[in-house]
Amino acid sequence: MHTTQPLYGGIEAGGTKWVCAVADADGDLVATDVIPTTTPDETITATVRFFREHRGLSAIGVGSFGPVDLRPGSPAYGHITSTPKPGWAHTDVVSPLRAALDVPVGLDTDVNAAALGEWRHGAGRDLDTVVYMTVGTGIGVGAVVNGRLLHGLLHPEFGHVRVPRDPARDAFAGSCPFHGDCLEGLASGEAMRQRWGRRAESLDDPAAWELEAEYLAHAVMNLTYTLSPERIIIGGGVAKHPGLMARVRARAFDLAAGYPTTPPMTDATLMDEYVVSPSLGDHAGITGAIELGRLSTISGKKGCS
Amino acid sequence: MHTTQPLYGGIEAGGTKWVCAVADADGDLVATDVIPTTTPDETITATVRFFREHRGLSAIGVGSFGPVDLRPGSPAYGHITSTPKPGWAHTDVVSPLRAALDVPVGLDTDVNAAALGEWRHGAGRDLDTVVYMTVGTGIGVGAVVNGRLLHGLLHPEFGHVRVPRDPARDAFAGSCPFHGDCLEGLASGEAMRQRWGRRAESLDDPAAWELEAEYLAHAVMNLTYTLSPERIIIGGGVAKHPGLMARVRARAFDLAAGYPTTPPMTDATLMDEYVVSPSLGDHAGITGAIELGRLSTISGKKGCS
Repeated sequence: MHTTQPLYGGIEAGGTKWVCAVADADGDLVATDVIPTTTPDETITATVRFFREHRGLSAIGVGSFGPVDLRPGSPAYGHITSTPKPGWAHTDVVSPLRAALDVPVGLDTDVNAAALGEWRHGAGRDLDTVVYMTVGTGIGVGAVVNGRLLHGLLHPEFGHVRVPRDPARDAFAGSCPFHGDCLEGLASGEAMRQRWGRRAESLDDPAAWELEAEYLAHAVMNLTYTLSPERIIIGGGVAKHPGLMARVRARAFDLAAGYPTTPPMTDATLMDEYVVSPSLGDHAGITGAIELGRLSTISGKKGCS
Repeated sequence: MHTTQPLYGGIEAGGTKWVCAVADADGDLVATDVIPTTTPDETITATVRFFREHRGLSAIGVGSFGPVDLRPGSPAYGHITSTPKPGWAHTDVVSPLRAALDVPVGLDTDVNAAALGEWRHGAGRDLDTVVYMTVGTGIGVGAVVNGRLLHGLLHPEFGHVRVPRDPARDAFAGSCPFHGDCLEGLASGEAMRQRWGRRAESLDDPAAWELEAEYLAHAVMNLTYTLSPERIIIGGGVAKHPGLMARVRARAFDLAAGYPTTPPMTDATLMDEYVVSPSLGDHAGITGAIELGRLSTISGKKGCS
């Protein structure tokens, strides 16, 4: 049905599924669909079919798995670049959607979309500088800094920072094909599966979760000392393990060792407000993708919010 | 002499000396002075005396050693907070200058001032996201992100991130009183002095500088994966050691292991443009301090530049 109210589309483009949604100007969802990620052609064609059912679409936003080329003016802008996912390396995501649907297409990383969603409508509301970290099969970080998404040269690839590993405690050399024992290589769901021989969901050895908390606490302090965010939001499947967030907060507080001498490092109870779960739950990504669509229609979208 | 052209003052407020300068609207220096850092009273009084010689001063900017409280509305705004420097903890820097000179006083960290200076007038010109790291007695980072200084909850305290240390290669447990072997605890001039028993300036053991390059390369990659800057500028006394920057670039390129598959990680020669020395040399800090003064007179100084 044609409507005069603007509608915005969002795509949470993941490696196993594309979550598609249409929302009205208030952000209320009008329709959703889940499309399995098969080949680029099949997946994009099914996505286009879904959005064609909704006339009056003003724009679409995409929060994509990556790395993605976000450099304005780059010949590969809008492409997923070097993903190990078969068939998807060097796939242009933006052009086919824009060509088929004839609307502006906003693109960012899946984690930047989630950061944007939580910042606009969730746990990061009313703050200037917020980090969103997802801990699932992989580890990624998106960030809003001074009210704008962090891009720089490319976009954060925080899963690949190095964190200290004590071989006496953790002999696992890490699962990252590039770096071995970077953060993702040590603390992602895939790393846990390789180290412990079972999936994180079915793992209840307390030592496994102590170690996981150790690495994530290092990640929290690394983010703290580099970006100085006002809040760190940790989402993703692995982060849902009961008790994990409390352990991460406690261990991060210990690692800070009282430095800097400002909250929350001065009072352990303040860590509950500093390291939090996404208040949009699993909807942070799609909420942010819709917001990316809305922003793509606003002239000067790169300006201050 | 009274002049109708606006003049701006800058103070590079360090732990051993305060470098003071007055510049005209074009940024050209009109006068400079160096005041030893003794007690807060003495130092600030001598500073006020210098600036009183220059009528027509529109504002002053201060790039200060820290940590400093930069939170607008905080009761401790403008204070140096928890420094170990005797007599200086919890010193209000901004109020006495403002009271005595009756001009706006802009304040930021010494490294944020240097980052601002290099971004406006030096090696970071025309870029959006630039990091300045100083490696001297201590290690600090300032950053311009999307054209604005990075503050967040406090300001970056990047000297305190953890980097991997292999005890078989480096048995030194680190010099940081809070964290032991954080980056500053391993790679600052003070850490080198404690580990090798002599000052960095007089140290020419190649193994010492290989190890220094190792830690600084980890710092470069950590900054890359977290902030995704377009350029990393490394200043400070230790960074001047001949050949060190080349080693840092080469080792960082190795550590990246080709990820992400975008420049400069695709071509080692591009690292020369990515990791650079400050083009303002030792003047980055005072240049940025003057700029902080100028910005403090501009309404909406926190807006996009």
